Amino acid sequence: MLPTILDLSSLRAAYQSGLTPLDLVETVIARRAASKDPAIFITATSAEDLRAAARDLMARAPEPNSLPLWGIPFAVKDNIDAAGLPTTAACPAYAYDPAADATAVGRLKAAGAIVIGKTNLDQFATGLNGTRSPHGAPRSVFDPEYISGGSSSGSAVAVASGLATFALGTDTAGSGRVPAAFNNLVGIKPTPGLLSNTGTVPACRSVDCITIFAATVGDGIAIRKVAEGFDAADPFSREAKWTSLPTSGLRVGVLCGAEREFFGDADVERLYDQAIERARTLGATVVPFDYAPFREAAALLYEGPWVAERLAAVEDFLATNAGDFDPTVLKIIEGAKDKTAVDAFNGRYRLEELRRKTQAEWKKADVLVLPTAPTTYTVVEMMADPVTLNGRLGRYTNFVNLLDCAAIAVPAGFGSNGLPGGVTLVGPAFTDDALASLADSLHRSAVSGMGIDCTGGIPDESRVATHDDGFVPIVVVGAHLTGMPLNHELTGPGGYRLKTCRTAGDYRLFVLPDTLPPKPGLLREPGFAGNGLEVEVWALPPAAFGNFVQKIPGPLGIGKVVLEDGSRISGFLCEAHAVAGAEEVTALGGWREYVRTKNPHSTV
Amino acid sequence: MLPTILDLSSLRAAYQSGLTPLDLVETVIARRAASKDPAIFITATSAEDLRAAARDLMARAPEPNSLPLWGIPFAVKDNIDAAGLPTTAACPAYAYDPAADATAVGRLKAAGAIVIGKTNLDQFATGLNGTRSPHGAPRSVFDPEYISGGSSSGSAVAVASGLATFALGTDTAGSGRVPAAFNNLVGIKPTPGLLSNTGTVPACRSVDCITIFAATVGDGIAIRKVAEGFDAADPFSREAKWTSLPTSGLRVGVLCGAEREFFGDADVERLYDQAIERARTLGATVVPFDYAPFREAAALLYEGPWVAERLAAVEDFLATNAGDFDPTVLKIIEGAKDKTAVDAFNGRYRLEELRRKTQAEWKKADVLVLPTAPTTYTVVEMMADPVTLNGRLGRYTNFVNLLDCAAIAVPAGFGSNGLPGGVTLVGPAFTDDALASLADSLHRSAVSGMGIDCTGGIPDESRVATHDDGFVPIVVVGAHLTGMPLNHELTGPGGYRLKTCRTAGDYRLFVLPDTLPPKPGLLREPGFAGNGLEVEVWALPPAAFGNFVQKIPGPLGIGKVVLEDGSRISGFLCEAHAVAGAEEVTALGGWREYVRTKNPHSTV
Repeated sequence: MLPTILDLSSLRAAYQSGLTPLDLVETVIARRAASKDPAIFITATSAEDLRAAARDLMARAPEPNSLPLWGIPFAVKDNIDAAGLPTTAACPAYAYDPAADATAVGRLKAAGAIVIGKTNLDQFATGLNGTRSPHGAPRSVFDPEYISGGSSSGSAVAVASGLATFALGTDTAGSGRVPAAFNNLVGIKPTPGLLSNTGTVPACRSVDCITIFAATVGDGIAIRKVAEGFDAADPFSREAKWTSLPTSGLRVGVLCGAEREFFGDADVERLYDQAIERARTLGATVVPFDYAPFREAAALLYEGPWVAERLAAVEDFLATNAGDFDPTVLKIIEGAKDKTAVDAFNGRYRLEELRRKTQAEWKKADVLVLPTAPTTYTVVEMMADPVTLNGRLGRYTNFVNLLDCAAIAVPAGFGSNGLPGGVTLVGPAFTDDALASLADSLHRSAVSGMGIDCTGGIPDESRVATHDDGFVPIVVVGAHLTGMPLNHELTGPGGYRLKTCRTAGDYRLFVLPDTLPPKPGLLREPGFAGNGLEVEVWALPPAAFGNFVQKIPGPLGIGKVVLEDGSRISGFLCEAHAVAGAEEVTALGGWREYVRTKNPHSTV
Repeated sequence: MLPTILDLSSLRAAYQSGLTPLDLVETVIARRAASKDPAIFITATSAEDLRAAARDLMARAPEPNSLPLWGIPFAVKDNIDAAGLPTTAACPAYAYDPAADATAVGRLKAAGAIVIGKTNLDQFATGLNGTRSPHGAPRSVFDPEYISGGSSSGSAVAVASGLATFALGTDTAGSGRVPAAFNNLVGIKPTPGLLSNTGTVPACRSVDCITIFAATVGDGIAIRKVAEGFDAADPFSREAKWTSLPTSGLRVGVLCGAEREFFGDADVERLYDQAIERARTLGATVVPFDYAPFREAAALLYEGPWVAERLAAVEDFLATNAGDFDPTVLKIIEGAKDKTAVDAFNGRYRLEELRRKTQAEWKKADVLVLPTAPTTYTVVEMMADPVTLNGRLGRYTNFVNLLDCAAIAVPAGFGSNGLPGGVTLVGPAFTDDALASLADSLHRSAVSGMGIDCTGGIPDESRVATHDDGFVPIVVVGAHLTGMPLNHELTGPGGYRLKTCRTAGDYRLFVLPDTLPPKPGLLREPGFAGNGLEVEVWALPPAAFGNFVQKIPGPLGIGKVVLEDGSRISGFLCEAHAVAGAEEVTALGGWREYVRTKNPHSTV
């Protein structure tokens, strides 16, 4: 009854068709038992507790799908608190029993989701590979010789192997994205501060983010919206200031020249180039940009003073328990002991200098498309050279949180070796929603399915349909139409055209005398039976709309214009007195035709 | 011919009346020579160079006042580069000859201002008192026994004693404000990043600000506008995001309970209380707030890791030149040597926690009014206990840059000892302009003159007349008037009423049928000879205006309404077809009267 991958749409449909949360948890229990990877969980929720959670939910909200995440199973990386299960950060001696859920976990549970267990990770979230754990290394669901990626290793494998609909990870250097790439999953890496870190074991507290592994972008965004929200208890929590992106002609920055580095992995390089081509096909404008300042910022995370945050997070524990650490993790964290406060501030200065340099690149591109990881390694390879190879994995991820970006990692198809590759869309802070549409389209166009089910489809129900950017629609009639003299007043502040259409039939159009550039006056006359007039609907940011309205000279103004489909949208109207004696051009069907009539050589 | 204090308005008036920049520099030369304080300048611009600068200006821009700061003399703190004069930071061994002006100095010179010299400071801007310099301690212009305040000691004394119209200082802990208080001056402390720090010797690079000492708030703001602006070369430079404040009912937060600490100085305490009373008289709503989290943030600047920024700034120089430091400054800077990177990050975490706590206080108050310094000391007292007493001076200033605030310090009158006290208005980032109106009114109502001229008046020409907050004016006619059902749509997003007035005479007013709440329709009919209609003009933030227009239902819209004074302001208009058959109420003179007629018991 249930598909291999428990994506949100399929599971909701199953609930709608009679599946119960009790049935679901039995499936989870069975699948967990049948899993070939023994390293996914550090603490699995007991079968008894899973059944109790299902029964509790059915008592609390009996109606199927009556909560946003009704009966949705999820896994929680074991550095995030889930009440009733110990938090260990993959260091058994560090274990504690949290008194409460982490804020994000609590929000998800309140929405009906059910925790199926605490997942394995690179100890203290220090690593991008998944091998740095006393609980063993989870493996790529596509080849047990290969690493799963980390640090959120178990979380990714749990979702990719169909044990959970989604899983929480954490991401400092790329821990919520690299494992997505290696397991054919979506990784939602929110803008820092969007999800509360209350109840999370810090890695680098100033840049840590909780992330979501999901089967589709639509799933991940829907889950993120449940989990996110300002939390006064987390000093790094922020109120969202949503930022939009152009919906047409989006400029997508891509690697070029010496900055294209795949460490010899021709498969991943080809998958990256194919993703760029698909972005172009999807309407994006592909622009090369200089990755160098981003790469230099990325290097700061481990080579600069930020590693001292990892030490700050465990300093007391380390003093008494050095022997309980993974040797590689210990070496990294102890490497911070000789960093001085001067080093810390010099690192901050360097980061600000690099941030300034990246700003020039952001003027070229609206978003970046990067390989999520440039290559991958076997577990044996990784353990033989754990620091160098791990560093390579983070080449395209480490800068993202330091530079306050949002990112969505999506599958990009499979290499000749049968291993998946991924690409990541990176945008400025709070473009989390704005990135989703292209990310989803890139995923779908890769035709690589979801997780282990790499030949299956992606449910239409989870499609990220529209780009809700909070922009205000406005009907323009004359000099603001595309190609007309005042169109720049719409494009300048970031407006974009939504559509060309017609007004309702009871509007008349006049040529306003003595206007420069020439402008029409649109008047509604109930009872007038015309054919409507051609207009364009544009979208403007609210503040730009306000300033736009403010600048309109009388007798023009902004009211509500009724369109042919009956919708009422803000748009240009004219005071009635101004058209007394004016030439009427209603019969031409619109201002563009009038301009053509006056100037047959016009191209507008 | 020239007044004691060379404020901007007086000097411009003198230029208008025939004074030349050459005359002016002769006055400066004479006044400098006559100055009783030998410690103001480290390097004074030579008389020859001053005359050359005046001649250059007259050649470049012959017309009086033809540049924003035409012939305006200013002093530059000697940690800010001015080409042609060495930069020493009050450490002779550190001196270098800058190749170029600091960005801010260059902008001021380009606007016609003339550098009269480089001023004394607490060495490396480390101090708030003015005694930590091998060039001696500048003194309060009111009593040579007393400290001038620092670290921008010479800059404040230069302006207060009439040698310059304004002076640049720098401010990390309060160095641009404390000396203003001790010399009866205005200190403009911009939002961090508003003025470029390119060409400044860093103190704590992440929080340093260039400041302006001026005779009046209006002068200081005008000068700041010349000096400010984004500078890509300074990684901490920021694009301004101007933030407004309510213009009526401004909530002014004041100290209360145990947080009122003046170290026994009843004079300053009385001046503070008087300033609060004057703020109340000026229309502010006085609210107590909890200063504790601000005080704790303030303490971090010297007691936490930020002192390591001072070490980072001079580390190489210190390695070879420890003997060239002022002993107190050396002790402070060397105190950072044992701070670790973990300390730095823990300090950052603590600051973020305190920032979160202060956010609760900012919900109570729009701005804070604080004593600039709680008390003052003689030079002898200060040198006997240089660290403890200096710490006291920063009690109310040290938090401001760490918490990303704007501040304006203004004179608050004189104590029984003949020494001035000051108060500082502190607002959130980018309220720099919004603070100015109340700051100017507080200064004027203190009736304490400007600088050494404490019995003189303050020129009306420099009055900060209006509060230019970027808000959009909108004429409302009916249900949005004060007290009417939809008025909350204006007040909710922070709008405020500008005035009540009348439209031009050719408008007619109708009662729109079937509207709830009842709404009028305003139509212009050229040639109609009425008396105009009573309306209100409100101001809205642009985004709120955009959203407001967006929500207006047809047949109403926003066009331009002509007022009785001929001005054209965005406001409510109505599509003509909608008033067919509607009741006309033009004769009642406005919608408020119509509502009264319908409901005689209404209080609106």
